[in-house]
Amino acid sequence: MKQRTAILLLSGGLDSATAGAWAKKRGLRLVALTVLYGQRHAAEILAARRVARHLGVRKHVEISVELDRIGGSALTDRAIRVPKARSWNSIAHGIPVTYVPARNTVFLALALGLAEVQSAADIVIGVNALDYSGYPDCRPAFVRAFERLARVATKAGIEGRSRFRIHTPLIRLNKARIVRLGARLGVDFGLTHSCYDPVARTVKGRMRWRACGRCDSCLLRRKGFLEAGMPDPIAYA
Amino acid sequence: MKQRTAILLLSGGLDSATAGAWAKKRGLRLVALTVLYGQRHAAEILAARRVARHLGVRKHVEISVELDRIGGSALTDRAIRVPKARSWNSIAHGIPVTYVPARNTVFLALALGLAEVQSAADIVIGVNALDYSGYPDCRPAFVRAFERLARVATKAGIEGRSRFRIHTPLIRLNKARIVRLGARLGVDFGLTHSCYDPVARTVKGRMRWRACGRCDSCLLRRKGFLEAGMPDPIAYA
Repeated sequence: MKQRTAILLLSGGLDSATAGAWAKKRGLRLVALTVLYGQRHAAEILAARRVARHLGVRKHVEISVELDRIGGSALTDRAIRVPKARSWNSIAHGIPVTYVPARNTVFLALALGLAEVQSAADIVIGVNALDYSGYPDCRPAFVRAFERLARVATKAGIEGRSRFRIHTPLIRLNKARIVRLGARLGVDFGLTHSCYDPVARTVKGRMRWRACGRCDSCLLRRKGFLEAGMPDPIAYA
Repeated sequence: MKQRTAILLLSGGLDSATAGAWAKKRGLRLVALTVLYGQRHAAEILAARRVARHLGVRKHVEISVELDRIGGSALTDRAIRVPKARSWNSIAHGIPVTYVPARNTVFLALALGLAEVQSAADIVIGVNALDYSGYPDCRPAFVRAFERLARVATKAGIEGRSRFRIHTPLIRLNKARIVRLGARLGVDFGLTHSCYDPVARTVKGRMRWRACGRCDSCLLRRKGFLEAGMPDPIAYA
């Protein structure tokens, strides 16, 4: 049987790395898609490239989208400060300012276009409804609605050649369980990057990024490794 | 009552100009969104700016997306030739090579993000199911599926603050009826641009674009004006 191709949305964080390892284990051949959306820094993209190599993807496509023109998020608008806290328990509740309006809708739309051109009927995305309970576009209802849309949105879909599926292997896992799953699947977490606001350091004449350790994403990652009882291999500022 | 804001997807063609005039007539305050997606030429974007001014939009946002990285379409890939025909009757049937995979899904996703930031619950798009019967993402089933997605995809949607609506005033009109509707609403068609493959000409030391007159889009436009019994004010090469 011919190996099926899947589009993997790859940010370079530990979730998408784990989702990719899960898809590979299921026998899917991966085409990785990294969306450059006006993030504050290049650290994420460099991590995505390292993880893509590590996963042995067939192809890695990078697409730039000026989501910063939309604004409204601390991740794309330098005028909005990335919030920092002392611990996971003290972070703000509700939908945080790091929410990027319609981000996953845009990401999945691009993945759908790429899937159509690559003759793929599967899209893999590492969204998570527990840790990002405030993000509307990380919930199962959103994913199912996108799946229904995908089936009427494309040439391949309406011609009945492919029945699109959106795979969300992490959607009901907490960070500790994601860390354990990734470890079991052989993910090298040292290659991943999670920080929303990394610090640039020059190490032996080369620029290196260090995770801040205090943004929501860093706090969540650290908590995950702690609860999983595993050391986090990355360095913090 | 406070005037409602709508996001208008504005390409600069006659359809989106007419859809914009329709929305204005309905009392909506417009924020125009033009997506730069790796089209072959700048003529479309210049037309979008002219039409935005003509419509008196409150704001015009231009967002660049590298859809050409996905490939698979004559509109974004220079290796694929834009087909030319002698008349509307001799153009190819089925889904044409000018179809851009998932284009309207990407456009609507960006419009949704902008709507959220602009506190708008309405999106206006000039899609048409008759003339582009081969384009999956111009059909009512696609639009309804996107509307359902929009209602679960955003902060505003899940908090119940807004019930997103996608308006498609042209979806069941043929080109002649669109021309007549636009004329009735006072659209200056001389500002619009429809051609997939325009020719650059230097007129009095300035670069001007001339419509080719023979691509699918030009043929459809010319047929529309002819059937509407109205002169097309733009110049052809």
